[in-house]
This record gives sequence, C-alpha cells and structure tokens, in this order.
Amino acid sequence: MELLKQRIIGEARVLPGDIVKVDGFMNHLVDVGLMRELARDIRAHFAGKEITKVMTVEASGIPMATVTAEELGVPLLFAKKAKSDNIEGGLVKSEIFSYTYKKKVTLMVSAEWIGPEDKILIVDDFMANGEAMRGLVDIIRQVGAELVGVAIAIEKGFQGGGDRLRAQGIDVYSLAVIEHAEPGNIVFRDQ
Amino acid sequence: MELLKQRIIGEARVLPGDIVKVDGFMNHLVDVGLMRELARDIRAHFAGKEITKVMTVEASGIPMATVTAEELGVPLLFAKKAKSDNIEGGLVKSEIFSYTYKKKVTLMVSAEWIGPEDKILIVDDFMANGEAMRGLVDIIRQVGAELVGVAIAIEKGFQGGGDRLRAQGIDVYSLAVIEHAEPGNIVFRDQ
Repeated sequence: MELLKQRIIGEARVLPGDIVKVDGFMNHLVDVGLMRELARDIRAHFAGKEITKVMTVEASGIPMATVTAEELGVPLLFAKKAKSDNIEGGLVKSEIFSYTYKKKVTLMVSAEWIGPEDKILIVDDFMANGEAMRGLVDIIRQVGAELVGVAIAIEKGFQGGGDRLRAQGIDVYSLAVIEHAEPGNIVFRDQ
Repeated sequence: MELLKQRIIGEARVLPGDIVKVDGFMNHLVDVGLMRELARDIRAHFAGKEITKVMTVEASGIPMATVTAEELGVPLLFAKKAKSDNIEGGLVKSEIFSYTYKKKVTLMVSAEWIGPEDKILIVDDFMANGEAMRGLVDIIRQVGAELVGVAIAIEKGFQGGGDRLRAQGIDVYSLAVIEHAEPGNIVFRDQ
C-alpha cells in the first residue's frame, strides 16, 4: 500500500537489531486517520469473506484493529498477555516467545467470547518472527473457529514469520513488506 | 449517558471485590459501534476546547481512545507499562500502583511525542482508584503540557479516584458513575 510505504520511508528510523521504529505514527503516537486508510484497504482485500470478529493482541495493534473492526461492522476481541484478576476462568491460552520482551508470554482469551461459530480476521500492526500471530492462530484452532486471514500493517519479510504462515495456506495480507532495512535504505518486497 | 448505563445494567456482572465486569462490550470483546457513540458524547462535552492529542494507557482504554481521537481529528498517544527494546531513551515516567495487577507499574511515554505545546484530553475505559489517571496527569505536568480534561466511560464513584481529580479542579467527565454495585443491583450517581 503506497500511502503506508511513503510514511515508512519518510518517518521510520532503523535501529540496531533490525528494529524499524515507526512510533511516530503507528505504535506509540498513532495517526488514527492513517489507521482508517489501512482499515479500508484491508476491508477491500477481504471483501466478500464472511467475518464475525476482528482479533488482535494487546497493545500496539489495538488502534488499527479497532478501526478495522468498525469498517467491517464486527466486534474486536483482543488477546491479553498477563492474567489479571478481572479475567475469571474459562481461558484459552497459547504460549509464545516475545522477541520484544525476550521472554515467554502467554496469550489468553476468554472462552466466552470466541467459539466454533466464529470467522476470525486477525489484525496487527507489525509482524517479524510471527510469534504473536502463531499464538492467535493456535487459539483460533483450539476453539474450532475459522481463520479467514491475517492482516498486517508492516511485515518484516526478512524475518520469515509471514511466509511461514503463508506456507500453511493462510491468507496473510501485509500492507508493506520490508525485505531489507538499514538507515536511509528501506527496501520493500514487490507485491 | 443513558446508552452506556443500559448496557451496564443489561450485561455487566458484579464479582467479589467490587469488580464490575464489562468484558463483553468494553474491555475484552469490544463493541466498536458503542465506542463511537461514547466518543461522540465526549467530543460534545469538550466542544470548543482546543485539543492537540488524546492520551490513554495500554491496553483496554485504547479502543475508546482511538475512536475519540478520530472524532477530534487528533493523534492518539498511549502510555506504555513496561520497557521494551523498541522504546529508546528520552522517556517521561510516572510510577503508579496497579490494583488490577497488585503491584507497582511504571507508565512511560517517549518525550519525543509530548511537549509544552500540547493540550491533552485523557481518555480511558475505567476509573476506580484513579492511579492510572494520576500517573498520566503526572506525565502531562512533567512535560509542561496542558491537561484539558479526563473522559472516562465507567467510573466507580465509590472508590474515589474521580472525585480526587475533580477536587484538583480537573474536568473529569464520566459517562457512567457507579455508586454501588452488587449482583442484580447497580446504582448510578445522578449527574
């Protein structure tokens, strides 16, 4: 998606460790108007598919997932990363490795809000190794729901997470796939 | 706000420990259409006030804060709760006590995205003891920004957080203030 690629070229900073920092418009300070444009593009890609819920994981994917859910006219379900007292029993869980936090994290969703009747579109802001996506896909399979697809704003293609999901036959729609990133030189995959 | 109160009466569950559980439409599965109605009500309340950014704290306040930011045509800034590798230096921090997690939590915002020129509306889904709000207000004061007000979906009035902020002269606008909660009997403050 050209609009997003231009924002990345103009505003992203590449930090050591292959980190592409877009916290001025995507995942700390959030340009909600841009999120709306991304959501419209995602809706167009999945046009004709029946979707009952948009699913993401806290926290930085929530703005984009919120507006995408509104575009599709369905509720948003966000997986939580730590057990709080406000989630009672009946949890569906999946353990992932968070490269951001360098530790194992358990994703969890209340079994009350997802079931075999659901057709789920996963939405997230970023995908690198794809661990968070792997956890969400695992939760969807545990409850017998249908995975319609995965929509990602920025995929770091060189880290392989997206292609591993595609190899499973999952429709992974990334609005910008970065194949190479160094300061002053960000190369996108031809799509 | 009558629409929200009716949803609370119809769908909230009261759990031991004065927990009012609204995770079927507010903070786990999210009715984004309802969030839009709340955002419109908040925009009307703060009409005429200059606002440059909406601010919240991850994670459950983000959906409502996202649509409120879009209603107001300003960016969303969400404070983070734990240091990840993707936030480099220049952080503004405030330590709060999280009653949800029963431990101290540090809220942090990159100094790059908030400054003395900002006029901030804080938005969150829930306020009980008001610790998270106290932390955000502290951050806003540290950077010399202006606090325009605080908009909350559900305030637990009997826990005092909102009234402590009002006593400081802050415009705290809560769409539903619960004064008493037991199973089958939720009493709202007259507003």
